[in-house]
Amino acid sequence: MRLPRGYRYASIYAGIRKERRDDLALIVSDRPASAAGLFTTNQVQAAPVQLARRHLDESGGKAQAILVNAGNANCATRTGMRVARDCCRAAARHLHVPVRHVLPASTGVIGVELDGARILKALPKLVRKLSEESFQDVARAILTTDRIPKVAFGEVPFRAGAVRIAGMTKGAGMIHPRMATTLGFLLTDAAIAPAHLKPMLRRAADRSYHRISVDGDTSTNDTLLLLANGASGIRPNASERMVFEEVLAWVMQDLAEMIARDGEGARKKITIHVTGAPSEEAAARLARAIANSPLVKTAIAGSDPNWGRILSAAGNSGVAFEPSQVDILLQGVTVCRGGVAAQFSERELKAKLDSPDCVIRFALRGEGRGEACFWTCDLTEEYVRINASYRT
Amino acid sequence: MRLPRGYRYASIYAGIRKERRDDLALIVSDRPASAAGLFTTNQVQAAPVQLARRHLDESGGKAQAILVNAGNANCATRTGMRVARDCCRAAARHLHVPVRHVLPASTGVIGVELDGARILKALPKLVRKLSEESFQDVARAILTTDRIPKVAFGEVPFRAGAVRIAGMTKGAGMIHPRMATTLGFLLTDAAIAPAHLKPMLRRAADRSYHRISVDGDTSTNDTLLLLANGASGIRPNASERMVFEEVLAWVMQDLAEMIARDGEGARKKITIHVTGAPSEEAAARLARAIANSPLVKTAIAGSDPNWGRILSAAGNSGVAFEPSQVDILLQGVTVCRGGVAAQFSERELKAKLDSPDCVIRFALRGEGRGEACFWTCDLTEEYVRINASYRT
Repeated sequence: MRLPRGYRYASIYAGIRKERRDDLALIVSDRPASAAGLFTTNQVQAAPVQLARRHLDESGGKAQAILVNAGNANCATRTGMRVARDCCRAAARHLHVPVRHVLPASTGVIGVELDGARILKALPKLVRKLSEESFQDVARAILTTDRIPKVAFGEVPFRAGAVRIAGMTKGAGMIHPRMATTLGFLLTDAAIAPAHLKPMLRRAADRSYHRISVDGDTSTNDTLLLLANGASGIRPNASERMVFEEVLAWVMQDLAEMIARDGEGARKKITIHVTGAPSEEAAARLARAIANSPLVKTAIAGSDPNWGRILSAAGNSGVAFEPSQVDILLQGVTVCRGGVAAQFSERELKAKLDSPDCVIRFALRGEGRGEACFWTCDLTEEYVRINASYRT
Repeated sequence: MRLPRGYRYASIYAGIRKERRDDLALIVSDRPASAAGLFTTNQVQAAPVQLARRHLDESGGKAQAILVNAGNANCATRTGMRVARDCCRAAARHLHVPVRHVLPASTGVIGVELDGARILKALPKLVRKLSEESFQDVARAILTTDRIPKVAFGEVPFRAGAVRIAGMTKGAGMIHPRMATTLGFLLTDAAIAPAHLKPMLRRAADRSYHRISVDGDTSTNDTLLLLANGASGIRPNASERMVFEEVLAWVMQDLAEMIARDGEGARKKITIHVTGAPSEEAAARLARAIANSPLVKTAIAGSDPNWGRILSAAGNSGVAFEPSQVDILLQGVTVCRGGVAAQFSERELKAKLDSPDCVIRFALRGEGRGEACFWTCDLTEEYVRINASYRT
């Protein structure tokens, strides 16, 4: 898949994380781009989150660079805001752009001072390394406990030509819906005004990033950024923007699903599909309650068709339903019909649940048309191992 | 500690669980007692929950027996309500009490038919076994994945003499606040009218059972029952009832803490103590958010003083606070002062966190007087092991 035009990328090891792999990266547009951001809903917000938000405000939704580091969240730190500001200022100077056009992002441990000097020292070389080919390098540099880099691409053919979308993301832990989860950077060469870009990003996130969960925790650093630099020379009109938004949402769904699949310690991606709910919102609430139940997630880890836990989790969602109107399917096999056990071969279903892709379908009978998909992962002993010793 | 007067107990193996240990139990008052119940808030309610609620309604808050089984939740079953009703009816006949004075309770797997014939067959022998000495036997019979029986006692000296309180409970998994969590039976020989008993139980639960969490899941069967049979001959007046309620809450706190300590796979009890919040309710919300964070619970499992996760979890509570006004203490050691890292010896604190009792103190500076305690347990690989194979 071809990358959007007019962007360059670079990554480098600046010595922020102990392990010697790239931990500082830069994404630069060759011209000022429209920019939109969604940020964590946590009360505790890392310095780079506060600063990126401010820069977007000051610039009226314009940006030209994303400066991102992994290995340190720069959150709950004494010098956090000064470090973030100094680094953006230095990057702006090297790139010859206004400082408000540099958007910072950080991920990693909370509460440890980020050594800005290392970033300032690495910046000149980082800027010299910028190239159109280094997209994948940046996608790797932003990872923390992720096992695989996560990138996705889209292309939207219009009468005047095609515009391109590329996205990269990182996830693994502290993933929770209803917010711009984790770090995600979306780039397009379409020309779209800031006023259109922000609502577009929010709606697409509602169908993707806001529909995944790994552990129910919401990080202090989550940042989702969308840049549209217009380098394609194509400015979609209102109806074309709807098509563009659809493809954007698909790209973001791809990324979000990858986060779920690569959840900390996960061996399985779980797709929860709710149908027949009174509304889409009710369907999403039911799906979310099932996705967030540790008992459901451990049952799937053990390939155990324990549908009672699914019914019970749905019963905690706050959505009213009649248990006798519930059908539950696992991997396409009906395990609960009308709220009670259905006949099925436990042995065969267990084998089907050994798949890396598990699908839970929760179907309410009746008139409801509300439907929603939600993605999560199984909860394994490995999740506990990873998180019992993250800092050490 | 002496047991309340006028109660008898019995347990037996009726063949409901595979493992051969007592799974059916009976608690009987020698006279009709005032009775109050709190039940699960889950939309999906097991047949015994529905029936116990109905019996309490019909009797106007009177009861004489509790019939409880472990090994099968009798929830989401085709024949559930009929089985529950038949068993209560048979018990009532054997005990010569009205059927509405028998309160049923069940715990175990969901969605598997409960074989009522086994209970009916065991009942005559169970009734013959009733004795004043078998309190502990019943406390053991109601356990599922619990490792230890959980009982607590209280005595309240009044001018006219002492009344006694005894309680037993079971927990382990599917434990979550804001409801009558798991099974809990409280017995007293005080004489208290039903109209006083219910609000008393609710207030005491707000300070005990509603302040614990193991995994954030809320069961379909949770039942908390309080019986007051008056066998002491003492009827506390309004001010004496306040003293009684205080002791009742202590007993229930003891039981609730035991549930947290014995959470599935838990090696440590975690006490979360929040101070300086704008209200007690806000303090409880902060404490609950910290208690429910898997990242906090795994960090404690690993004796990792990762206070950033505590701050982040509090930031997700929905309670507004200024991060720079937060102090966090672990085992009495300040790890975060004014929202940023404090100086402490990581090695020494790690050793302190190896204790089976861990205390997190989250203190907001300022004028707030809201304070709350909350109890939970660490999240270990063992929790995942237990729950990945519960049915099989």
